[in-house]
Amino acid sequence: MQLARIGATPRGGVCRLALTAEDAAGRDQFVAWAREAGCTIEVDRIGNIFARRAGADPARAPVMTGSHLDTQPTGGKFDGNYGVLAGLEVVRTLNDLGIYTQAPIEIAVWTNEEGSRFVPVMMGSGVFTGVFALDEVLVQVDRDGISVRDALAAVGYAGEHAPGHPVAAYFEAHIEQGPVLEHHGDVIGAVTGALGQTWYDLEIMGMEAHAGPTPMETRRDALVVASRLVARVNEIALAHAPNARGTVGFVDVFPNSRNVIPGRVRMTVDFRSDSEEGLRRMDAELQQACRDLERPNEIGIALKTVVNFPPRPFDAGLVDRVREAARAIGLPQRDIVSGAAHDAVHLAQQVPAAMIFVPCRDGISHNEIEDAQPEHLEAGCNVLLEVMLQEAGIALAEQAVSVAEGA
Amino acid sequence: MQLARIGATPRGGVCRLALTAEDAAGRDQFVAWAREAGCTIEVDRIGNIFARRAGADPARAPVMTGSHLDTQPTGGKFDGNYGVLAGLEVVRTLNDLGIYTQAPIEIAVWTNEEGSRFVPVMMGSGVFTGVFALDEVLVQVDRDGISVRDALAAVGYAGEHAPGHPVAAYFEAHIEQGPVLEHHGDVIGAVTGALGQTWYDLEIMGMEAHAGPTPMETRRDALVVASRLVARVNEIALAHAPNARGTVGFVDVFPNSRNVIPGRVRMTVDFRSDSEEGLRRMDAELQQACRDLERPNEIGIALKTVVNFPPRPFDAGLVDRVREAARAIGLPQRDIVSGAAHDAVHLAQQVPAAMIFVPCRDGISHNEIEDAQPEHLEAGCNVLLEVMLQEAGIALAEQAVSVAEGA
Repeated sequence: MQLARIGATPRGGVCRLALTAEDAAGRDQFVAWAREAGCTIEVDRIGNIFARRAGADPARAPVMTGSHLDTQPTGGKFDGNYGVLAGLEVVRTLNDLGIYTQAPIEIAVWTNEEGSRFVPVMMGSGVFTGVFALDEVLVQVDRDGISVRDALAAVGYAGEHAPGHPVAAYFEAHIEQGPVLEHHGDVIGAVTGALGQTWYDLEIMGMEAHAGPTPMETRRDALVVASRLVARVNEIALAHAPNARGTVGFVDVFPNSRNVIPGRVRMTVDFRSDSEEGLRRMDAELQQACRDLERPNEIGIALKTVVNFPPRPFDAGLVDRVREAARAIGLPQRDIVSGAAHDAVHLAQQVPAAMIFVPCRDGISHNEIEDAQPEHLEAGCNVLLEVMLQEAGIALAEQAVSVAEGA
Repeated sequence: MQLARIGATPRGGVCRLALTAEDAAGRDQFVAWAREAGCTIEVDRIGNIFARRAGADPARAPVMTGSHLDTQPTGGKFDGNYGVLAGLEVVRTLNDLGIYTQAPIEIAVWTNEEGSRFVPVMMGSGVFTGVFALDEVLVQVDRDGISVRDALAAVGYAGEHAPGHPVAAYFEAHIEQGPVLEHHGDVIGAVTGALGQTWYDLEIMGMEAHAGPTPMETRRDALVVASRLVARVNEIALAHAPNARGTVGFVDVFPNSRNVIPGRVRMTVDFRSDSEEGLRRMDAELQQACRDLERPNEIGIALKTVVNFPPRPFDAGLVDRVREAARAIGLPQRDIVSGAAHDAVHLAQQVPAAMIFVPCRDGISHNEIEDAQPEHLEAGCNVLLEVMLQEAGIALAEQAVSVAEGA
């Protein structure tokens, strides 16, 4: 709640766009808290922050957790922020209990996960894992022409370290951003993987004409065809249930005047599936729908794929650790797939990774009314503590003393 | 072509919004030409201009023709302007031939037909015929808060005369703004009447949610429902063919982001029919479609009627005059209904009225590429001359001399 005051919006949300003054203030607050908790801080060249709690065996790669502090323009208090603060809570709890681990523990704050100000989304974790090239990302600019490089320098988070270092395991706690856990009355989601995504831009070209004098049978109405595509996208996704999604989120009608037949519509399609085969079939069905609609309506449809992420299963062993931890604590749980991409999806390409979902109210996120129950957030922290301890290993008493003295 | 230079756009169209400096320049040009042609000018309090050519019998009400000089923001050269200049051409031709009429002839320039800057549309003719109250119309404001009253004063067309005076008959020549004449190879449309119109505003309320984590079956996607309504509007109009139209021209999606399920859609519906019964049935079918979609989709639909014009048949006798004139001249013609409203629709409530349509290229109007063939425009002028002469009556030679001397 204290962090949520930074960039707080009048309607109860948070606006903390990546690498703005608000994001910097949020980062500074986290760094201060992490230092208070005995962590050392490193920042890499893409601005990712790593708060490290030393382990008894410095040769071991750290067990990492984390998420992001940037938000959507009308974002909530929990998306991303919860995962970072859950890591901090793990460290504080270990401190409180005087427990030291064999492997070091790291809390990562990934730069620009949301992508609201700079593309690509999930920028920091993508650079860390080599999915994106640092030099290409640093020259990306926002709407005002400010580059990532300049924005990092301006907020004081252009670090020295080359991005990327060994990680033993990565866990990310996150609100579900969907209604499934709440609907089933479960508290913990053991996330088995993330849906693959294919994003499209479509342009539907007809002919604008006056709505009064133009008989129905001679019209080339781009919106009528666009509407059939919206319906078709919905049908395609339903036919590939349960782990498929199809959404038209954006529609732009030209000239968008009540008494003019629309001559052009731009729209997007967002397809998601847990299998590459599913994405391929949905793609083929969309292509077919476009072909079927073009000729009889004298309409041109340009379909362009703009994003393609394959489905990303998480590490089976770590997912099992999450299930076991929830069971041991006695929390109602279920397996779940992540419909959204997260930094963990990038991490999963390089290191064993898993995620822990907790419910959010009405499944709503990317919204100022995003909310979550304290007891659910606490439950997620407890599971995170358990799995991190399992992976990092508890140090023997005599080791613990020397680590504590070193810190 | 000379008038079209005033407010000319780079793409060959005209932008001469009502009561702007461009509109004023267009009006000034018309007034200058009308005075050159021997007309006297009167302006009424809503800015309608009446250019009057005296008749042999000053006691007779004038035979009137006219249209408008204002355009859409990306309008063409002919919509409205043709009807005004056709009237001027009739006067010039009568002058050239030394013909005088029994009844006076008037050319009307109606204020703000397009409604692009101020509502209501067809403002000047509506005030002239008492459909709109002058005082209510004068206080309407544009986007910048400028009132009709102030705009009239600024351009020097706030006349003294109370709107409305006797008219013996009204003819309006206009481009068809549709493809029917061109399609059939006809040159003259004898317009039997104008379609009635019902315009609606709809708001479709669902729940926005993240496109990834939200399963298909729990969605309340406002755009999926809006798309079904677009399809339904199209089906309803097709079912009431041939003299019915149904158009969704405007769609606004919220939040309109590619990975967010739309939570709210605002859209319009424009229904037209040549019968009141047709409009009533289309209305009932739309209401039913909304009710059918609300419950199963957990969606709220607010449907509001914002405009309702009944179908308006033109005067059977005058329509017959148009047919006869075209036949006498030997022009291919057909009966046609006007899908659009025109100033003639207001006039028809008070005086015998009719319209003469000529083809426009590809049926396109409200567009900078709007075009028409000189020989078709000339044909329309010849029909207009013929029907106005019929209604006004040719003065005897001795009467003509005295009128000419008076002028």
